[in-house]
Amino acid sequence: MDLPPSPLARPFPDMPPIAGAELRVARARYKEWDRADLTFAKLAEGTSVAGVFTSSACASSEVELGREQVKLGEARALVVNAGNSNAFTGIRGREAVEQIMAQVAEALDCKPSEVLVSSTGVIGVPLPKDKARAGIAAVLDAPTCGWEEAAQAIGTTDTFTKGAQAAAMVGETRVEMCGIIKGSGMIAPDMATMLGYVFTDAAVAPAFLQELLSKANAETFSCITVDGDTSTSDTVLAFATGKAGNGELSSWEDVGADAFYAALLEVCRELAQLVVRDGEGAQKFIEIAVTGAKNDESARRVALSIANSPLVKTAIAGGDANWGRVVMAVGKAGEPADRDRLSIGFGGVWAAKDGQPLADYDEAPVARHLQGDEIRIDVDLGIGDGKATVWTCDLTHGYISINADYRS
Amino acid sequence: MDLPPSPLARPFPDMPPIAGAELRVARARYKEWDRADLTFAKLAEGTSVAGVFTSSACASSEVELGREQVKLGEARALVVNAGNSNAFTGIRGREAVEQIMAQVAEALDCKPSEVLVSSTGVIGVPLPKDKARAGIAAVLDAPTCGWEEAAQAIGTTDTFTKGAQAAAMVGETRVEMCGIIKGSGMIAPDMATMLGYVFTDAAVAPAFLQELLSKANAETFSCITVDGDTSTSDTVLAFATGKAGNGELSSWEDVGADAFYAALLEVCRELAQLVVRDGEGAQKFIEIAVTGAKNDESARRVALSIANSPLVKTAIAGGDANWGRVVMAVGKAGEPADRDRLSIGFGGVWAAKDGQPLADYDEAPVARHLQGDEIRIDVDLGIGDGKATVWTCDLTHGYISINADYRS
Repeated sequence: MDLPPSPLARPFPDMPPIAGAELRVARARYKEWDRADLTFAKLAEGTSVAGVFTSSACASSEVELGREQVKLGEARALVVNAGNSNAFTGIRGREAVEQIMAQVAEALDCKPSEVLVSSTGVIGVPLPKDKARAGIAAVLDAPTCGWEEAAQAIGTTDTFTKGAQAAAMVGETRVEMCGIIKGSGMIAPDMATMLGYVFTDAAVAPAFLQELLSKANAETFSCITVDGDTSTSDTVLAFATGKAGNGELSSWEDVGADAFYAALLEVCRELAQLVVRDGEGAQKFIEIAVTGAKNDESARRVALSIANSPLVKTAIAGGDANWGRVVMAVGKAGEPADRDRLSIGFGGVWAAKDGQPLADYDEAPVARHLQGDEIRIDVDLGIGDGKATVWTCDLTHGYISINADYRS
Repeated sequence: MDLPPSPLARPFPDMPPIAGAELRVARARYKEWDRADLTFAKLAEGTSVAGVFTSSACASSEVELGREQVKLGEARALVVNAGNSNAFTGIRGREAVEQIMAQVAEALDCKPSEVLVSSTGVIGVPLPKDKARAGIAAVLDAPTCGWEEAAQAIGTTDTFTKGAQAAAMVGETRVEMCGIIKGSGMIAPDMATMLGYVFTDAAVAPAFLQELLSKANAETFSCITVDGDTSTSDTVLAFATGKAGNGELSSWEDVGADAFYAALLEVCRELAQLVVRDGEGAQKFIEIAVTGAKNDESARRVALSIANSPLVKTAIAGGDANWGRVVMAVGKAGEPADRDRLSIGFGGVWAAKDGQPLADYDEAPVARHLQGDEIRIDVDLGIGDGKATVWTCDLTHGYISINADYRS
């Protein structure tokens, strides 16, 4: 099934090269298709790596290995296979990953643990070792390519190609940051896993890079949802090549650490939102801001309860400012709330305040807002200072068609 | 919008009268419709009551009051309003409930706390006191009616009328039990709240009745889901009039307690499954049995994670034995699981065992099973003795149409 681009798609941005990161793609033909499906990034010696991974208890071998590899903090290469997720494939799946790590390590004269591998695609079929071996051999000989080609090659069911970039001044040194991502639902046999990669030429100590990425993740990738389903393979990795020439960042006290984090947060937020914009069947992009919660984590849970509610998501699809369904989603979140302090608004207009519909509620501007494709829902719980913002999309016939009507 | 009966509907069963419970209905005209929408049950002196309620933090006044009333253990009347949920209506909503309680208490010469009230329908509009007052006056004068009429009158978006009955021998005494329920999604402004009522002529002490109902609830109403959304008004009440003449049941040691519980469990399970059979847009009834979990509660959480997964529900809608999506749903449940011990089957045929697809997996019988409208999914986690069974329905274009396309 080839889908047209999402109506919420964004054009691929201009993205500069990152010193110390060379991109290449090749055709491993993991599926019967004629496109690049193996992406390779060669990273300079001394590159730091950090990662965040799916919380799934049934994670793929790539994720299990990756969790250990990022603890070591150093990377020399990234390999991304598209068309086969290698998930739920037991020992044979793990052997395929280890083969790739060994083959690349030999070519680059590095440790296998410095070769990060991700796979996305059909579940339950071990990654074919012969195709992987030939694909790696081909990609090592391939010419270098740009970000858009790499972003295309990691995609599967994506309807558009996704990238984001930012720059920051670390002291007197300008550092660049580029990210690419794939994902459109959460998971399906032909596959919507979220895989994201951020590359920077900044010098950042591995432990601090991990701290920064984990913090950014909590405010971005952990704040998006399409259908509440979680892939067995979700992965975000950050690589810092150290080629920009800045003094290595190793703590928040370092000059430029705040600026670097701001750039990282910007790239991660844009990448996260791009995944939502490619949500299966999405017609509307929805931002949900919760304030007045007991604390920030409680606010995030309430916001995600709203964002994952099929009744809220179908109401938005229908252009219906249905605050009753928002009340329901707040109530079921299992977080502290007080019905009589709860306020709900759409597009900046309060519909209900302190547990009751507003007497002078003017539905006209709200109805106009709901006709657009960028929807804002505000919820104030009125009991504390906790706040969070999450992003999701509406639930439409398109979602059902993609996931029920067309079998792979 | 008038919908045709669900393809999964069941005919209303023959249900005997319950001594000590008199049913009446009337037209309060809470909405612009010409149907009975106020249901009244007059209960004999000495009737015990127990209840389970929504866990929503934004519950209606009816639920807030009901939680307190069932602690007192005695009931003389039940009033159910259909067409207005009275939820999110602040103090004015509470006053309307208290007015109904006072009016009925005066007529029956009982305490207001012995009058249980439920409401279901549009959110955010206080229940109109004048219509309620006239409706109560009319219903007190109305002729008595049968179970099917009462079950019709409590319905809102239900596409068929729902009841269940059972009998048990308590010592030498036969006791009867009849239940009615309404509900089809979880909640919506024109409204899919679940309200269920079980009546028996058995004599049961209030505290023990509560213990039995809570236990049955954990295995039945807490094990169904349509869309994972939870109403602000969900309520199940049990009334025991004591007119059968059995020795009062007050503990598990009493003769007949086990038989009585078995009957209660049977009625509750049937009522719960009827709600799923009327799930919005449902085309297939799905039973999900999880075994080998760490404990029973963990098994229930895993089963509900599968039952609430849009990707699993759309796969079933499409007749797709998509065990990869089941793996995903197990993984995201946040419960102990081991990918390499996980087994998944459909219709009694294992598709994957111990973390890998079965080499000799025969898809033909599974494909036939998936073409039917009663689907069984088995999941064995392989790590413990915990087990649970839950029921849900598939996710179809019908759900989207009901909740997005047609605005109330």
